[in-house]
Amino acid sequence: MSFIPDITAVGSMALDTVTTRFGTHKDCLGGSAVYFSMSASFQAKVGLIGVVGDDFPKEHTELLKAHGIDLEGLEVVPGAKTFRWSGSYLNDVNAADTHCTMLNVFATFEPKIPENYRKAKTLFLANILPSLQMKVMEEMGSSCYKVCDTMNFYINSARDELEKVFEKADVIFMNDGEARMFTDCPNLITAGKKIMERFSPEYLLLKKGEHGALVFGRNGFIKAVPAFPTEKVVDPTGAGDSFAGGVLGFIARNGRLNNDNVTEAVRYGTAMGSFLVTAFSIDAFRDLTLAKIEERVEALRFLSK
Amino acid sequence: MSFIPDITAVGSMALDTVTTRFGTHKDCLGGSAVYFSMSASFQAKVGLIGVVGDDFPKEHTELLKAHGIDLEGLEVVPGAKTFRWSGSYLNDVNAADTHCTMLNVFATFEPKIPENYRKAKTLFLANILPSLQMKVMEEMGSSCYKVCDTMNFYINSARDELEKVFEKADVIFMNDGEARMFTDCPNLITAGKKIMERFSPEYLLLKKGEHGALVFGRNGFIKAVPAFPTEKVVDPTGAGDSFAGGVLGFIARNGRLNNDNVTEAVRYGTAMGSFLVTAFSIDAFRDLTLAKIEERVEALRFLSK
Repeated sequence: MSFIPDITAVGSMALDTVTTRFGTHKDCLGGSAVYFSMSASFQAKVGLIGVVGDDFPKEHTELLKAHGIDLEGLEVVPGAKTFRWSGSYLNDVNAADTHCTMLNVFATFEPKIPENYRKAKTLFLANILPSLQMKVMEEMGSSCYKVCDTMNFYINSARDELEKVFEKADVIFMNDGEARMFTDCPNLITAGKKIMERFSPEYLLLKKGEHGALVFGRNGFIKAVPAFPTEKVVDPTGAGDSFAGGVLGFIARNGRLNNDNVTEAVRYGTAMGSFLVTAFSIDAFRDLTLAKIEERVEALRFLSK
Repeated sequence: MSFIPDITAVGSMALDTVTTRFGTHKDCLGGSAVYFSMSASFQAKVGLIGVVGDDFPKEHTELLKAHGIDLEGLEVVPGAKTFRWSGSYLNDVNAADTHCTMLNVFATFEPKIPENYRKAKTLFLANILPSLQMKVMEEMGSSCYKVCDTMNFYINSARDELEKVFEKADVIFMNDGEARMFTDCPNLITAGKKIMERFSPEYLLLKKGEHGALVFGRNGFIKAVPAFPTEKVVDPTGAGDSFAGGVLGFIARNGRLNNDNVTEAVRYGTAMGSFLVTAFSIDAFRDLTLAKIEERVEALRFLSK
């Protein structure tokens, strides 16, 4: 019997060199698909679609497999190099300074969806080119729950395609800066409402980093979920994808989002982000357990009670 | 029978000229004592200690009186001018650009506490010179509940006196920027914990504007209360004092803060701040009712549920 994932995820696979005031880590495991999949793996079976070169260390694929992530959708291109990103967070823990981006094999990425991945109930489109997000969305068919993330880069460079993705999405993730940029609106509440009005997804989840997250639903529905009080922010890279992983993991266990469960889903996302940032790369996920995640979700419930 | 206030409040009384993208309002009613007292007046009897010149319009004192605020502690100095401040919020709705500060009669303010005000259960020290806050605190005696606010200006100019006030205070209000500046610590959670460790008040309430508020208590107790989703921020002047007014109004009705009621108290503060910013000066408080406030507190309860 072939593996049918709960979530089919497509996104970047990277080797990151990251500098924070806690030091520099070279060529460590990164990329939106990695952060998302590792995060979601605690609650869901994930099928990962991505691309790497043959320089991608075997220990990384082993780690992903050890977390139950299916790699049939991971393409390894012989003789090619994996996407590399380097950046630092020395001035502001909320915003990276990019030093260097080498797209390498990611530049010509064409996601191929394994047959059994098409049966997944949920599709997560991490921040890849909107035109590729669109292609995957169409290939997956209309019955799956379509969730997308984006990044500021595409808001400027591929806005038309991005809007088409948003029109098709059931759930949209964005961060505060992206929402402001996309709507040209400094007030976040107005920005969120404008996006809801324009694209009418079921939910828009606005991530605000240390200030938590806002949920926008239809008919003016709004929720605000505070961040977990975290003192030690070692490396924020991938926090947004880890947040999405927590939310979609919750969906895999509890069904689609609705006005009654969306706050709880966002708490799972918040919990995953709060663990992730306490170490470089995905290191904080190595020894994490669902029990520890649920303990933190309980703390988050109490936090604003 | 003489009037005994629930709260004795001391702070500035001002005529403000404020410019936001909604326009300019000249010489409108302002000052920390005014915002605080008006806000608290919906739940508590307030005795106000402040100073104005004889240019202070009678309609302003009438408005305060109409809200049940006792003005026996308001000194009117003949031939002198009221404190004037002018500023704008054109670039950032969270931070004022000060154009001009004319202290006038406020420069030589020496708070005098009417005899019956000394019987108030709660003392609120709005942002006046820390040495004056200290003097009032000592005169009020040790049995009253001592709550203080501050402003960034005094962190730089009167740090030693400010620290003495903090040492005596039961509850400290600060905004996020002030907490970061005071502790030289970019992480707000760490900043809050440092202030708790150093001064050991019962509670530290950290105001984060559009991102809500954090509560720090003893033994690592933390709560996070989101802001009310407000699209129309017309004039943020006095939002912090109005927040304090909501919290202390709650205290007047429900007794001192404790770990079980502090979140609810902060919701009252949040509600008052959210009303205030929708109009210039204290205009949003003119037609406000306790019923409307409680409706908003209920919405805030739901917001993070």
